[in-house]
Amino acid sequence: MDVKKLVKNGIPRLTAYNAKEIPCRIKLDANESPYGFSSSLKVATSIPTNRYPDAEAKEFRNLISEELGVKPENVLHGNGSDELIYYLITTFGGPVCYPVPTFSMYGIISQALSEKKIEIRLDEEFDLDLDKVLCVIKREKPKLIFFSSPNNPTGNCYSSHKILKIIEVSRGIVILDEAYQPFSSRQGFLPLLKDYENLIILRTLSKIGLAALRVGFLIADVRIIKEVNKVRLPFNVNSFSQAIAVAALKEKRQLHSHVKAIVSERERLLDEMEKIIGIRPFPSEANFILFKARDADKVYRALLKQGILVRNIKDVIKDCLRVTVGTPDENTAFLKALGKVAL
Amino acid sequence: MDVKKLVKNGIPRLTAYNAKEIPCRIKLDANESPYGFSSSLKVATSIPTNRYPDAEAKEFRNLISEELGVKPENVLHGNGSDELIYYLITTFGGPVCYPVPTFSMYGIISQALSEKKIEIRLDEEFDLDLDKVLCVIKREKPKLIFFSSPNNPTGNCYSSHKILKIIEVSRGIVILDEAYQPFSSRQGFLPLLKDYENLIILRTLSKIGLAALRVGFLIADVRIIKEVNKVRLPFNVNSFSQAIAVAALKEKRQLHSHVKAIVSERERLLDEMEKIIGIRPFPSEANFILFKARDADKVYRALLKQGILVRNIKDVIKDCLRVTVGTPDENTAFLKALGKVAL
Repeated sequence: MDVKKLVKNGIPRLTAYNAKEIPCRIKLDANESPYGFSSSLKVATSIPTNRYPDAEAKEFRNLISEELGVKPENVLHGNGSDELIYYLITTFGGPVCYPVPTFSMYGIISQALSEKKIEIRLDEEFDLDLDKVLCVIKREKPKLIFFSSPNNPTGNCYSSHKILKIIEVSRGIVILDEAYQPFSSRQGFLPLLKDYENLIILRTLSKIGLAALRVGFLIADVRIIKEVNKVRLPFNVNSFSQAIAVAALKEKRQLHSHVKAIVSERERLLDEMEKIIGIRPFPSEANFILFKARDADKVYRALLKQGILVRNIKDVIKDCLRVTVGTPDENTAFLKALGKVAL
Repeated sequence: MDVKKLVKNGIPRLTAYNAKEIPCRIKLDANESPYGFSSSLKVATSIPTNRYPDAEAKEFRNLISEELGVKPENVLHGNGSDELIYYLITTFGGPVCYPVPTFSMYGIISQALSEKKIEIRLDEEFDLDLDKVLCVIKREKPKLIFFSSPNNPTGNCYSSHKILKIIEVSRGIVILDEAYQPFSSRQGFLPLLKDYENLIILRTLSKIGLAALRVGFLIADVRIIKEVNKVRLPFNVNSFSQAIAVAALKEKRQLHSHVKAIVSERERLLDEMEKIIGIRPFPSEANFILFKARDADKVYRALLKQGILVRNIKDVIKDCLRVTVGTPDENTAFLKALGKVAL
């Protein structure tokens, strides 16, 4: 049996997403929050394991819709926002368009689903090249355009007037993936939903202390939700994640104080990294910082030798690495190690 | 914006899987186990919510592979076996072939993924019509052939010599979905894996007391696993489900006693249902019983009026309903109510 001949065309060239665990003492590679919600775990102990989850995740969707001032019918829940990206591409198909460098899953999932992907390089300031995007829209009529906002791994937000123009011009759907929005000083795109029916907002709980749960959601026009919901697996978010998400989201004070601490530490990290010779950090609206080093491999290895894991992304952006904001102690350890390495 | 014009061709005709909750006192509609694993929930309270799950589900896959005498590389984990069906069809594409009536998700997912589906009617005894299947294999060369074994909703196993013949003849992949195998007196197809590289076994924890978790897995040749793993979302099974699954699977005595109790109650239900005039139960190798009534709607409504929820499947099999085996008390209540209704 030649399995490669049996699979669909795009599959043999596809590489599985690499999520290998690398042993470390301080984990600053995956844009996780350093703070969890252990207090919310009590709810898990009273869940009947033998019953299927609520297929509609009613309690969760009600809570989200109240928070965001939309209707529950405008909210769709996913097993992480990854799964919702899968469902969006399944529902609408390609061409799928997105600027690069960005979150790798837009491309991986497009390819997994055998849909055409169109990558448009960001400009030198990591902002959208509006002319190029408009040209692609005209020529290729993409069904879906994904914007990570703030963008991973660059950390910045694109110019909002450019995104606005794209939403207005596109005959397809524009998705604002706001995974890192809680850490941004810029307003998100949610208020635009009422004016633009081809707009989808994508959010996740993974960056605010709940990555273990795998809960993401999208907010959109009910007509979009209705179609995407058809390709959703009925029990896609398990009972534990639903219950713990609801419990944690109710701990608003804790949520806010975590985000505030991360933003404040991000600014400290930026200030301190600026001072390190040989290192150039880029401004960030997210919970991570992109930085340039003279020798990315050397910096990566030297940090890891001291037990500090960051993300080496030199293959994506020349000479660059990405560090997640950790606890004050973790950040201090990182700065100290970086100072030594960069010399 | 006309959303229906934006979506892929098959989507407008697709109907979302109906998993609406119907209020009831005794829930015998979803083939859940009546017994849970509350003792295993303690593990949930020590999980860091802020960290991503193990993308490779190593502990879970190690445990499964030990249990089944295969290698961890032969096991792939899914967010329920539903998700693995999604991934199989994404990886191999169609035509997707399966006998009907059967588990509805093979068809729903094929359509969601815009892949051709070929349904072959079972014979009068709910067994495979071998000639028809062989004819379809020759003519249509299906990439994937799904067999639910024991079959949902009929409850029987197909003749194994017919399945064997199909595995031998097919140039595509044959998937034995053994969701209900733990309740069967017949041997499963796992021992055949070493002889047939085009065979995949699909299993789930949903029927043995862990439906809340959404954990399924497939067992196959490493070359198949490697390709399917490429289209898998990296963090598809959350940390809680992984940990609770491992804890529960270690409670072997409890698992076995639950299954034993369900099988014994199934036989009692069958015996007692035989005695009810106007009701014809079909033999079952699963944790549910298919039965015929003079008026399925009337029986369904009358049972529900007494708080007992079963599945009305008259649209799938004429005059038929499906009841899940519950606790002895639940089954007695069901029998009593059914006796009154059927009169």
